[in-house]
Amino acid sequence: MRHFDFEQISTLDPTYRKNLINALPGYKPLHLMGTKSKLGVTNLAVFSQVMHIGASPPLIGVLFRPHSVKRDSLENILDTHVFTLNHVLPDWHVQAHWSSGRWEGSEFEGTGLVEEYKADWPAPFVSGSPVQLACSLVQSQTLEVNQTVLAIAQINHVFVAEHGLRSDGSLDLNALETVSVSGLDEYHRGKKIARWSYAKPGIFPEEI
Amino acid sequence: MRHFDFEQISTLDPTYRKNLINALPGYKPLHLMGTKSKLGVTNLAVFSQVMHIGASPPLIGVLFRPHSVKRDSLENILDTHVFTLNHVLPDWHVQAHWSSGRWEGSEFEGTGLVEEYKADWPAPFVSGSPVQLACSLVQSQTLEVNQTVLAIAQINHVFVAEHGLRSDGSLDLNALETVSVSGLDEYHRGKKIARWSYAKPGIFPEEI
Repeated sequence: MRHFDFEQISTLDPTYRKNLINALPGYKPLHLMGTKSKLGVTNLAVFSQVMHIGASPPLIGVLFRPHSVKRDSLENILDTHVFTLNHVLPDWHVQAHWSSGRWEGSEFEGTGLVEEYKADWPAPFVSGSPVQLACSLVQSQTLEVNQTVLAIAQINHVFVAEHGLRSDGSLDLNALETVSVSGLDEYHRGKKIARWSYAKPGIFPEEI
Repeated sequence: MRHFDFEQISTLDPTYRKNLINALPGYKPLHLMGTKSKLGVTNLAVFSQVMHIGASPPLIGVLFRPHSVKRDSLENILDTHVFTLNHVLPDWHVQAHWSSGRWEGSEFEGTGLVEEYKADWPAPFVSGSPVQLACSLVQSQTLEVNQTVLAIAQINHVFVAEHGLRSDGSLDLNALETVSVSGLDEYHRGKKIARWSYAKPGIFPEEI
């Protein structure tokens, strides 16, 4: 195995280091976040640092890079307190990637992805996304360690394509064709290996 | 599409709600965390709330459920300040799942996964894992919103199987056979769709 210690990591070429360290978490969630500014300009941005915070009440977290430069999505959320999260499909995952460019106007216009409004939610959903979440900010905190910002939001609405919703509430992400991201720029489909029963000591799990 | 609003989510059957809300992030990273208690008892636990915090210095975060019941991994980290994170392979992903049972002794013994020690790191790695990280606690903070605990750690050592390390520092997770998890209990391989050049406004990304 290749071994890098802390000193070696510190002296790596910055691009090499960024590629390596961003890949270490493994397969990451991929979401398009839709927001709208106070002036009504929509914004679309791609996020991979999205995490389950709690099921009851339903809470989800998004980690933003340091707020030291202009971050349209974060500023819109701090202003309006609402946003959407949208799963990405293989057919338009490149448009999702493209939304991370430093566009002047709305990334919807730039990339050709289409805004959708429903449930009286003021932030735009991404039309065609198989899992769409309407979220409202509960708390945002800056992590002292490097000034990244963790936004924690309540999930106010969930829209799920019927063909991916199982009778026990779980989602069939393979059927939904949800895309995952690794590193900074690589996109994947998932291929199910198995699903296992609740783990108990001494009793080997059963496939469910 | 099926629509659930906040009130409907609140009144769902608890198991249905847990399955649904845990699936909303999409494909999640999967890691086995290795720790050792002050008394020398090793512990192994599976985590999906693992996130990239920063590349320089290299920082990674893990979100723990509320510390209101006994959490061996978290207590070991608070005591010893060190842990390991290990990618999971398809061949033994069920043992990883099994480690989440409430074992009395070490989950290594219980599940049959094998401890590995190297680089003078006091916490156990998982033998055979293609990506192994030695981490040291930098900061832990309790999220007010629901008492989950975010632990932020420095990455002190990275071990990567050579066949998955590309010349630009990125990892080929498909080649490494890294496993991803969705919801509470479903495991997946990844299948690359594409990798795209750095996004710029007005210039369609190129495949790299």
